[in-house]
Amino acid sequence: MIILIDVGIFAGPSSKEPPVAQLGTELKGYGVSVIGTRTSRPEVTGPDRLTDVLPRRFADVRQASMSLGARLSDEDQTPQSMTDASPAKWHLAHTSWFFEVLLLEQFVTDYVAFNAHYNYLFNSYYETIGDRHPRHVRGLLTRPSAEEVRAYRAHIDAAMTAFMAAAVDLDNADEIANLITLGLAHEEQHQELLLTDILHLFSHNSLSPAFQPYRPIPAGKAPNIEWLEFTGGVGEIGFDGDGFAFDNEGPRHQVMLRDYRLASRLVTAGEYLEFMRDGGYRRPEFWMSDGWATVQAQGWSAPLYWQERDGDWHEMGLSGLRELNSQAPVAHVSYYEADAFARWAGKRLPTEAEWEVAGQKQGVTGNFQDSGLLRPRPTEAGPGLQQMFGDVWEWTSSAYSAYPGFRPVTGAVGEYNGKFMSNQMVLKGGSCVTPEGHIRPSYRNFFYPHMRWQFMGLRLAEDK
Amino acid sequence: MIILIDVGIFAGPSSKEPPVAQLGTELKGYGVSVIGTRTSRPEVTGPDRLTDVLPRRFADVRQASMSLGARLSDEDQTPQSMTDASPAKWHLAHTSWFFEVLLLEQFVTDYVAFNAHYNYLFNSYYETIGDRHPRHVRGLLTRPSAEEVRAYRAHIDAAMTAFMAAAVDLDNADEIANLITLGLAHEEQHQELLLTDILHLFSHNSLSPAFQPYRPIPAGKAPNIEWLEFTGGVGEIGFDGDGFAFDNEGPRHQVMLRDYRLASRLVTAGEYLEFMRDGGYRRPEFWMSDGWATVQAQGWSAPLYWQERDGDWHEMGLSGLRELNSQAPVAHVSYYEADAFARWAGKRLPTEAEWEVAGQKQGVTGNFQDSGLLRPRPTEAGPGLQQMFGDVWEWTSSAYSAYPGFRPVTGAVGEYNGKFMSNQMVLKGGSCVTPEGHIRPSYRNFFYPHMRWQFMGLRLAEDK
Amino acid sequence: MIILIDVGIFAGPSSKEPPVAQLGTELKGYGVSVIGTRTSRPEVTGPDRLTDVLPRRFADVRQASMSLGARLSDEDQTPQSMTDASPAKWHLAHTSWFFEVLLLEQFVTDYVAFNAHYNYLFNSYYETIGDRHPRHVRGLLTRPSAEEVRAYRAHIDAAMTAFMAAAVDLDNADEIANLITLGLAHEEQHQELLLTDILHLFSHNSLSPAFQPYRPIPAGKAPNIEWLEFTGGVGEIGFDGDGFAFDNEGPRHQVMLRDYRLASRLVTAGEYLEFMRDGGYRRPEFWMSDGWATVQAQGWSAPLYWQERDGDWHEMGLSGLRELNSQAPVAHVSYYEADAFARWAGKRLPTEAEWEVAGQKQGVTGNFQDSGLLRPRPTEAGPGLQQMFGDVWEWTSSAYSAYPGFRPVTGAVGEYNGKFMSNQMVLKGGSCVTPEGHIRPSYRNFFYPHMRWQFMGLRLAEDK
Amino acid sequence: MIILIDVGIFAGPSSKEPPVAQLGTELKGYGVSVIGTRTSRPEVTGPDRLTDVLPRRFADVRQASMSLGARLSDEDQTPQSMTDASPAKWHLAHTSWFFEVLLLEQFVTDYVAFNAHYNYLFNSYYETIGDRHPRHVRGLLTRPSAEEVRAYRAHIDAAMTAFMAAAVDLDNADEIANLITLGLAHEEQHQELLLTDILHLFSHNSLSPAFQPYRPIPAGKAPNIEWLEFTGGVGEIGFDGDGFAFDNEGPRHQVMLRDYRLASRLVTAGEYLEFMRDGGYRRPEFWMSDGWATVQAQGWSAPLYWQERDGDWHEMGLSGLRELNSQAPVAHVSYYEADAFARWAGKRLPTEAEWEVAGQKQGVTGNFQDSGLLRPRPTEAGPGLQQMFGDVWEWTSSAYSAYPGFRPVTGAVGEYNGKFMSNQMVLKGGSCVTPEGHIRPSYRNFFYPHMRWQFMGLRLAEDK
Repeated sequence: MIILIDVGIFAGPSSKEPPVAQLGTELKGYGVSVIGTRTSRPEVTGPDRLTDVLPRRFADVRQASMSLGARLSDEDQTPQSMTDASPAKWHLAHTSWFFEVLLLEQFVTDYVAFNAHYNYLFNSYYETIGDRHPRHVRGLLTRPSAEEVRAYRAHIDAAMTAFMAAAVDLDNADEIANLITLGLAHEEQHQELLLTDILHLFSHNSLSPAFQPYRPIPAGKAPNIEWLEFTGGVGEIGFDGDGFAFDNEGPRHQVMLRDYRLASRLVTAGEYLEFMRDGGYRRPEFWMSDGWATVQAQGWSAPLYWQERDGDWHEMGLSGLRELNSQAPVAHVSYYEADAFARWAGKRLPTEAEWEVAGQKQGVTGNFQDSGLLRPRPTEAGPGLQQMFGDVWEWTSSAYSAYPGFRPVTGAVGEYNGKFMSNQMVLKGGSCVTPEGHIRPSYRNFFYPHMRWQFMGLRLAEDK
Repeated sequence: MIILIDVGIFAGPSSKEPPVAQLGTELKGYGVSVIGTRTSRPEVTGPDRLTDVLPRRFADVRQASMSLGARLSDEDQTPQSMTDASPAKWHLAHTSWFFEVLLLEQFVTDYVAFNAHYNYLFNSYYETIGDRHPRHVRGLLTRPSAEEVRAYRAHIDAAMTAFMAAAVDLDNADEIANLITLGLAHEEQHQELLLTDILHLFSHNSLSPAFQPYRPIPAGKAPNIEWLEFTGGVGEIGFDGDGFAFDNEGPRHQVMLRDYRLASRLVTAGEYLEFMRDGGYRRPEFWMSDGWATVQAQGWSAPLYWQERDGDWHEMGLSGLRELNSQAPVAHVSYYEADAFARWAGKRLPTEAEWEVAGQKQGVTGNFQDSGLLRPRPTEAGPGLQQMFGDVWEWTSSAYSAYPGFRPVTGAVGEYNGKFMSNQMVLKGGSCVTPEGHIRPSYRNFFYPHMRWQFMGLRLAEDK
Repeated sequence: MIILIDVGIFAGPSSKEPPVAQLGTELKGYGVSVIGTRTSRPEVTGPDRLTDVLPRRFADVRQASMSLGARLSDEDQTPQSMTDASPAKWHLAHTSWFFEVLLLEQFVTDYVAFNAHYNYLFNSYYETIGDRHPRHVRGLLTRPSAEEVRAYRAHIDAAMTAFMAAAVDLDNADEIANLITLGLAHEEQHQELLLTDILHLFSHNSLSPAFQPYRPIPAGKAPNIEWLEFTGGVGEIGFDGDGFAFDNEGPRHQVMLRDYRLASRLVTAGEYLEFMRDGGYRRPEFWMSDGWATVQAQGWSAPLYWQERDGDWHEMGLSGLRELNSQAPVAHVSYYEADAFARWAGKRLPTEAEWEVAGQKQGVTGNFQDSGLLRPRPTEAGPGLQQMFGDVWEWTSSAYSAYPGFRPVTGAVGEYNGKFMSNQMVLKGGSCVTPEGHIRPSYRNFFYPHMRWQFMGLRLAEDK
Repeated sequence: MIILIDVGIFAGPSSKEPPVAQLGTELKGYGVSVIGTRTSRPEVTGPDRLTDVLPRRFADVRQASMSLGARLSDEDQTPQSMTDASPAKWHLAHTSWFFEVLLLEQFVTDYVAFNAHYNYLFNSYYETIGDRHPRHVRGLLTRPSAEEVRAYRAHIDAAMTAFMAAAVDLDNADEIANLITLGLAHEEQHQELLLTDILHLFSHNSLSPAFQPYRPIPAGKAPNIEWLEFTGGVGEIGFDGDGFAFDNEGPRHQVMLRDYRLASRLVTAGEYLEFMRDGGYRRPEFWMSDGWATVQAQGWSAPLYWQERDGDWHEMGLSGLRELNSQAPVAHVSYYEADAFARWAGKRLPTEAEWEVAGQKQGVTGNFQDSGLLRPRPTEAGPGLQQMFGDVWEWTSSAYSAYPGFRPVTGAVGEYNGKFMSNQMVLKGGSCVTPEGHIRPSYRNFFYPHMRWQFMGLRLAEDK
């Protein structure tokens, strides 16, 4: 049984292959080692990917997930701290389920599921694939055990490796390669979520558990904000390059922009403290109506994970509860808070198009998961835009909706992005827990405006 | 005490004055009389408005509100059927409060409030004006009585009439005139809401009370949909004409459009029935994720106000419960339902820009409140776009957000529109309960995507 | 059609008839006039009641309801401030529905309902009678109007008057008389509820509307509490006398009591203030676990209707917002608060049996609705138990459950009391809004322990 | 530091010591082995308990908890399926916390807490001991690990063993022994809860995990119900014997009883199925008002853990999902369901006093946790009352409230039982997961009437 499904992902021919990332070097001075190592992105196309780059990428990405899990006890991997989060174990299983159900079961004749129950347990939200374990009780799945999930992963790894070797000669090898590429991007997204979900879980524990030891970095001082001008007119956004992108990043299209300015760096925790001390959370004039209602209902008075102890602010992070670094970017603020801060500052948030047009000219470098720091860090002085990638996702003022001409594909993969195009806002640029190489200027992340558990912050913008 | 506040509404100089609307003529053949009569719009500018057009407009608009209230008993005017709705009596008082607090108390020396408690009771959502009666218990205000509210209105009418005459010589007469114009537009919005809120209230009563007697119209048959093409490129949307517009309608700005097509008419109730019969409410593939969750949580299986009785569909309306007219536009569907219908039909909703660019070329005529029908009616065959204005508000796929360069004004009036720019969707074109003359192509209505109690429907669009 | 239903109410033969109550005399010195006048209780039995006492009682009770309604505008009678309360208009209609559905439709051949919709609209909770308008939206019934409800009442009054005259010769005349007696007791219960529900409604209005003008009473000082001893052993509680009682008051049965003491009077507002000032609402050690959770969830810090203004406590009552009378009994406290107060005071609440055994020896006199004061008043010094009847309902520590041998009757009337025998607590003695003559020592009122909107207070008890 | 606290538990002098229970023998024929072994109850009193019986009892009870935990993976021990349930790991830690905080920290000079955080993490509900980890997020405590909890237990075991040896010479040795006895009874309660909570957790997993292998028992057929008569008059209930009882079981006191009858055995699953097939869950006439509302809101149509598959009923239990045994007692029904069943059957539930007076004459034998079956089993024919102890807790019609003269002690232990005396109903007799020897006729278990996750069933009663 060899079935072709139209996966509708954006991948064109290309021969260029970026150099292997110099992982671990960037923060070497800080004594920071890296999590896993990655080979280059397989931005090649064509069936031959299946015998060369893709198997190496597959092994790397799959191993990176295991490395994250290896820092957690099996107990750590089990509970779920809220419906929006998932257990670490579930992330590890679900990313394997993706390959099993969308690749192996589709393309491998006589493939037998590793466990007949897993399709029910580890389907996330694909209505077309069938019923599934309710999302809000994923944390009650003490069985299968983490050990069984690891066995599941090993089984899928072996089956996929064999499948890739065999698939190279198939007529639809290119489509299969595209779908595997999608599966790897999907797994990288879940690597990020695993980290943000573990942080959320640990934040409920008064022991303030640490995912990893705390690694000090040199005291930095955020430079003054510079205002970088961008001339309006017809711009272009959306993906159309070689290599992989998600369906929601296209089609590339023209947008009309006015002249605008972007701040040279992210807003810092210290600046956010000023907003707080100026009554930011008590003054409705800064807030969207829905935001103000949320502040009242939730009793918000600081970013998520901030705690005041004896007059000093601390922040819970992946290395436990630490004194707040006022020079580092503020993180874990909702859209409402980001927007209110901007209004307080007399500025505004950038639109997605403003951000992306500026971001297209920047190299996609920054403080990603691979640096191993796993928290935002103060920028260093320098010319031009800083921190466009990594550190924290940047809230834009743009609602997440379809680009002109966007059409989700038919079938299960069509549910990947399209059905979430209501009520959410776009964030750009990745964060300190985004896997290096995962992100692009056209990348569209999206969350509800009240959400805070991702590494979310902001950059200011203004009209010229 | 004469204080100038910067009201920031869009009103420029103009000498053109549209002819007096031929009210009541349009539907004369159906024996429909009109609610109230209106003079022309005071689209003139300058201080002289205060002695000429504006007093007449003021009297007309204020009288139109009273005419709506006159069809209701004092008991009808008292309760509130949900937090989103308000009692009729409250609408009548709040619109007077607007003039009292934003005009008389600002500009009239020694003005004494009609009742010192009313500012607390009848402030809607202006945080900067102070505390107010909680929104969700507006329906518990049996005092002041409807009779007292009418006395309040008479008092405000007299005070405003005297004030307009006196204000013409003030330095800030033009700004005052702008603010009065805003107050009248505000009151017209509440006239529409009064009708939709009364319908919602009556829909909870098994007696199916009628706001007005049922008036039959000739059986019509909706013509086939024609697909009208629009060529892409740089378009312009937003208000910049003479006369009044709300702040959120500007600035006028360029937008980039692809080629697109709009359906010549609104989707009918009969077409929506086909969607239902094809399992529309049971098939997740048509729905946004949030929409599907809403369908499940609310148990939706038809538009609001539809009831199946003995196999026949009926609809509750302002003339009571009547058999469904399959040829009339479907109304009272949420954004989720409109979007799902479009997906089922293989089409999509138009963006706000697509709608507005097309709508700018149409005359603003249609089935408005002034026709007295107070329900959508089948369109007649004809060339070009039909039903762009009136009948039902048309959901667009555009989230309600600020136009480039938009800045809400400082002060209370700045809360009018800007603070709602999150989580809501734009609707265009007005409805059968919108006062005639109230609407413009640039008019931006906005509601949450789950809301259904307004007269909301849809027009299909597609890419070329 | 003459159908006999077994109404199962407790009514035995008796010839004694209490003297006509000297209404209005009790508080005459205070310039207080009375609401309505009542004839004596028809505690006679036998068919002849239908021609003599019962018609007069019927006319009196029905008129008393109208007198209460007459103090309210039609708007006042329309909304519903919470699910547990009902609109005044609904009380007036529902009490008529009771006679229509349980008497006229059962026993009068060819009786035609006044309005075919009313059975749906005005059934309260009788599952066996059929579907009904949902309780939480009773306040949305602007139609039928209060005027129509008055017409309904007049219709029922006339029909019942004719029916009583005709029924005297029927074989089941005695059962009919019993059922009418039940209907009148039912209507008196709703008279009390009408007053407590209006107070709750008015408490949401910052105008603090008054049901009636404020009538000052001489400043009194509550005497010191005396502890009255009762010797334990086998006691008897429950109704078995002549005349009417509700089914839940029987059977009369023996109970085993220990020696106990009751306080000579009710706890005063001033004493309750001491509890508050001693941190009563902040100290979990005084509270039931569920009570403490309720305090936290609801943010309780004082009895319902108490407001602190500039350091002075006020209380909203049926004569508007007035300064708190520290010498009057505390009212509008939940069971949890009553119980916590008693624990703070080192005492306890009495059981129902303790209260009733003591109450059986007291005359059923006190500050009832007929005094016209409509608020609790300070007791005067005197020997023995004071304030056992009237002023405020007294919380007991007894859960509301069936007496040994209790069996609800079959049919709709069987739903009257029995199905509420879970989760509620018994209160004894009536209140300042209970109609005079309505109450007995064996009377069992019952509410959930978190409820506060009735006139509820407490008397302390202790072991000997 | 040796501090005496008044523990206020009921323990008097006694020299009788029951024989060692013949564990494992009862069900030997079924191949059922037992969980743990128990020595006799230390129903002796006096300081010498501390050197003899109590250390052995302590070791046994503590080991029994460990044996339960040993059947679960560390992951199984971590999550919490609802607020009313706790993680297995938490049960194991909390029961150790009890000894640490109420014994070791009170009586041992210079005792240093095992971990300073544990008092916060493992306090259940003792307000007087201080703040504590919120109950509803106990399942998020992945740290401390199950391994650390086991180390904690070992530490406490050693410290307590040393403490008992040292305490025998103290002046307050008897009070200490009483408090240890309380701690052991407390731990046995948590052993039962651990099992019911694990079942609830596993019931959310479509893999239907089993706590232990399924052990078949001979097919039995429940005998016909016999009605056993009890003559009314003055009875006595409550504890006054030698040995231990909880404070809420006393004081022993007289009660007045009418003649009554009790069914000879528990209601079976098959009989409950008849109720279901007769529309039990669709007919409001059988239900308390609150019960009917719960049925509607929760969509109940069968006992908790029952599932219909292809027309056959199955039940999830501690040995996984198995076909329903119609001859075994029905379990996992709420008070509302038990009460409705009884009404449907034309009977009623017994009062606590009726049950206890009858139960006092029975030997406390039955199908307890120690049988190792861990599910209710069909009774065998025999004279007199069957199944009074073990199998399922029996709902009574008595609300849980204080016995006459009951006074909770001061201090933390006073919160053990007293503060739950509202809104809950009494259950008697223990269940198939109650540790053998834990129960007495006077034992008062209590749960809210909507709860179902304990092994709860019913026995019918009727008036003579």
